[in-house]
Amino acid sequence: MEYDLVVVGGGPAGYVGAIRAAQLGKKVACVETDRAGGTCLNWGCIPTKALLKSAELLQHIQHADQFGIQVEKVSFDFAKVIGRSRGVADQMAKGIEFLFKSKKVDYIRGSAKLQKDKSLLVTAPDGKTQTLMAKNVLLATGAKPRPIPGLAFDGARILSSKEAMAVPDLPESIVIIGAGAIGVEFAYFFNAFGSKVTLVEMLPKILPVEDADSSDFVTKSFAKQGIEVLTETKFEAADLSGKKIKLTFGGKGAKTIESTHVLVAIGIQANTEGLLGEGVAVNLDRGYIKTDDRYQTNIPGVYAAGDIIGPPWLAHVASYEAIEAVEGMFDPKKKPKKVEVFPGCTYCQPQVASIGLTEAKAKEKGLKFKVSKFPYKASGKAVASGDSEGFVKLITGEKYGEILGAHIVGQEATELIAEVGLAMNLEATVEEISHTIHAHPTLSEMIMEASHVAEGHAIHI
Amino acid sequence: MEYDLVVVGGGPAGYVGAIRAAQLGKKVACVETDRAGGTCLNWGCIPTKALLKSAELLQHIQHADQFGIQVEKVSFDFAKVIGRSRGVADQMAKGIEFLFKSKKVDYIRGSAKLQKDKSLLVTAPDGKTQTLMAKNVLLATGAKPRPIPGLAFDGARILSSKEAMAVPDLPESIVIIGAGAIGVEFAYFFNAFGSKVTLVEMLPKILPVEDADSSDFVTKSFAKQGIEVLTETKFEAADLSGKKIKLTFGGKGAKTIESTHVLVAIGIQANTEGLLGEGVAVNLDRGYIKTDDRYQTNIPGVYAAGDIIGPPWLAHVASYEAIEAVEGMFDPKKKPKKVEVFPGCTYCQPQVASIGLTEAKAKEKGLKFKVSKFPYKASGKAVASGDSEGFVKLITGEKYGEILGAHIVGQEATELIAEVGLAMNLEATVEEISHTIHAHPTLSEMIMEASHVAEGHAIHI
Repeated sequence: MEYDLVVVGGGPAGYVGAIRAAQLGKKVACVETDRAGGTCLNWGCIPTKALLKSAELLQHIQHADQFGIQVEKVSFDFAKVIGRSRGVADQMAKGIEFLFKSKKVDYIRGSAKLQKDKSLLVTAPDGKTQTLMAKNVLLATGAKPRPIPGLAFDGARILSSKEAMAVPDLPESIVIIGAGAIGVEFAYFFNAFGSKVTLVEMLPKILPVEDADSSDFVTKSFAKQGIEVLTETKFEAADLSGKKIKLTFGGKGAKTIESTHVLVAIGIQANTEGLLGEGVAVNLDRGYIKTDDRYQTNIPGVYAAGDIIGPPWLAHVASYEAIEAVEGMFDPKKKPKKVEVFPGCTYCQPQVASIGLTEAKAKEKGLKFKVSKFPYKASGKAVASGDSEGFVKLITGEKYGEILGAHIVGQEATELIAEVGLAMNLEATVEEISHTIHAHPTLSEMIMEASHVAEGHAIHI
Repeated sequence: MEYDLVVVGGGPAGYVGAIRAAQLGKKVACVETDRAGGTCLNWGCIPTKALLKSAELLQHIQHADQFGIQVEKVSFDFAKVIGRSRGVADQMAKGIEFLFKSKKVDYIRGSAKLQKDKSLLVTAPDGKTQTLMAKNVLLATGAKPRPIPGLAFDGARILSSKEAMAVPDLPESIVIIGAGAIGVEFAYFFNAFGSKVTLVEMLPKILPVEDADSSDFVTKSFAKQGIEVLTETKFEAADLSGKKIKLTFGGKGAKTIESTHVLVAIGIQANTEGLLGEGVAVNLDRGYIKTDDRYQTNIPGVYAAGDIIGPPWLAHVASYEAIEAVEGMFDPKKKPKKVEVFPGCTYCQPQVASIGLTEAKAKEKGLKFKVSKFPYKASGKAVASGDSEGFVKLITGEKYGEILGAHIVGQEATELIAEVGLAMNLEATVEEISHTIHAHPTLSEMIMEASHVAEGHAIHI
């Protein structure tokens, strides 16, 4: 038996691609070494959101008095916080396994190695092997945390994001190296529960891919929350001999810090280890698989999508790529789309969401643009719900008013960005947004208000 | 001195219209009897959202254990809950007063009576009168709660929404007559704090303007929360002689109920009392001011917008109408738009939001349409945040896939509806939504997923 498609990897690219192919009537298998759902669902996006929910609730409870509610003796069971998060991941993974069944995707546990004849040698967890014949292959093995030289992950004190989300006990102190979305979310999380947190970033600002206003806002908020933030600061050395880890940093925040734990969140690297059999010469670029405009590698019939093909490393981008790749694979007339505009979210509090160009990027490109901002504190809904920290910032074309970028910091920013995503996809203008009736009172009105600002006639500021 | 525009009423139609006119360089006054911001801001949308936030937080705290957080002795200070809500309203009203100053709108406290010569006789709270000369007048006095015959508001036991949001003590028991958005929000609120709540609706379903699926979902959720819901049940008589009020209802839920309080939320009536001077014959329709396609009444130069011109009685519709009316007033070439598509929100938990046609309405119109639903329980974000009750339902044209209506029940439904609002305004199709990359993991993905369902290839269900 030959599959129409064998997908290697069961994450947001892999399982989504497999399901889409099955919907097209194809015979599909999906091979996954760990658990259906991949890193995102089991060790990334989903379980961290469960952890962050507990952290938010704890903070809300600590401020309940301002809402007229009194509580005595607030405490937490950290193991239960972690346990709930693992339970959520387990529940969602079971959901994907159920989808595989109902959509008739053969789900195979094991690690797959691509052979020269495009077949896949799959080694099951128990060591048994089988060969899957495939007309097409989609490589979607994703990526894994990248260590810092001199600070190898040990899973106990020197953690990657995977281990950080399942620590058995709350770290007394933790240094987080790397202030991208992952580092920032964990900084918020551990600090909320009472760890002493130091967040270290080599670049001038935390959340370096975000608009400078967003980074600055979160930096100030984190300082208020008690997180020490060191930017332009570089890891130099670690002394692991003592009970605590002694870390030496250079640069602007040069100092030596002792802590019980370190989380290294400086980036990821492609999961290509063991993926390619002898003589299978798939072209790579800095470790990532190179693909053409149909998501095909240099080997005909072998495609790749998701983190394995390089940045941006985002679950929703991976799923989109996989759908486009699969649809193109089985329909030569289809021209698969590449990802151009995509949202990015960081789920600390205040939340950060963005899409399109930052102000700096728009300048760098020499575009003529306007910046319009609307503060959460002028939103009735934000004030009524007791959390009026944040802003909506739009970058719009000066001539036509098209949206070039949007940056939102504050409660539900990660939900609010969706409207701007649709607007950008439809090439809508600020006029079209400002003329759309937004429900009152909602936070989404701020998108409309920022559009009014861009048009030069703000109502509420 | 003659004003270019005198606006009567300082609510979401009035203050927004006044500000818009001032932005156009006009000399504007806004006359308000009570407080800038009108009912919405002072006695409606905004303070209720503050109350509901306290209720939600209380419920979250009661379920904190599942998130790994323990609290002892949860109690509340009801006066503080009410006080915070009043404080929020006060803060926002001050904000509008500040906007009036900064935008150069003359804000005049008093009640205005329109005279035959289009001037306005304004009586200040201290009884002093003045006459404002006006080239144009915008009547935007809104509406007020409508009593039930035989159950006159007394402000102590027989409450309108205004008094309900400022009760000094938590009612032991309350019967809420009328299960529109206002009745439903108060039912949720009082029940969350421990009042015994009975919600009575004359029509077959609560939230009668919503899609039947939404009404049914909330009915079930309310039952679980301990709220007694009686539909097809009509108020017949009240006996006010005892310590408790004895209410007799007929119809399906016929019974006699004793309660300490009653909230009458059966609808509203136009605030036209005292508005029109002798001989000023503005045409009315069932008590509401009739306007033409430029929001002009039968008296040239006298316009009206907001609740005073009839349904839908929504703050965001009022603001939109006022902007359109004012822009048309000063630009004869502009063709003011009328409100066609608008969202509606109910902020109980689970939240309810909708836009466009219900399934029943689409059927009634004889349209060819598809219904697609996606459940919150299949959303990773919903599950991770511990609240996976709800659904997204889209009604889409069978042939082109245009959005005819959307109905969302569940957490943040009121924010999620914004994207669909933009989609409808831009006449977007489900294909355009499903091809827009939505951030993972967010609740907004469910709009995309429901679009996939409409296209016949759901990924996650």
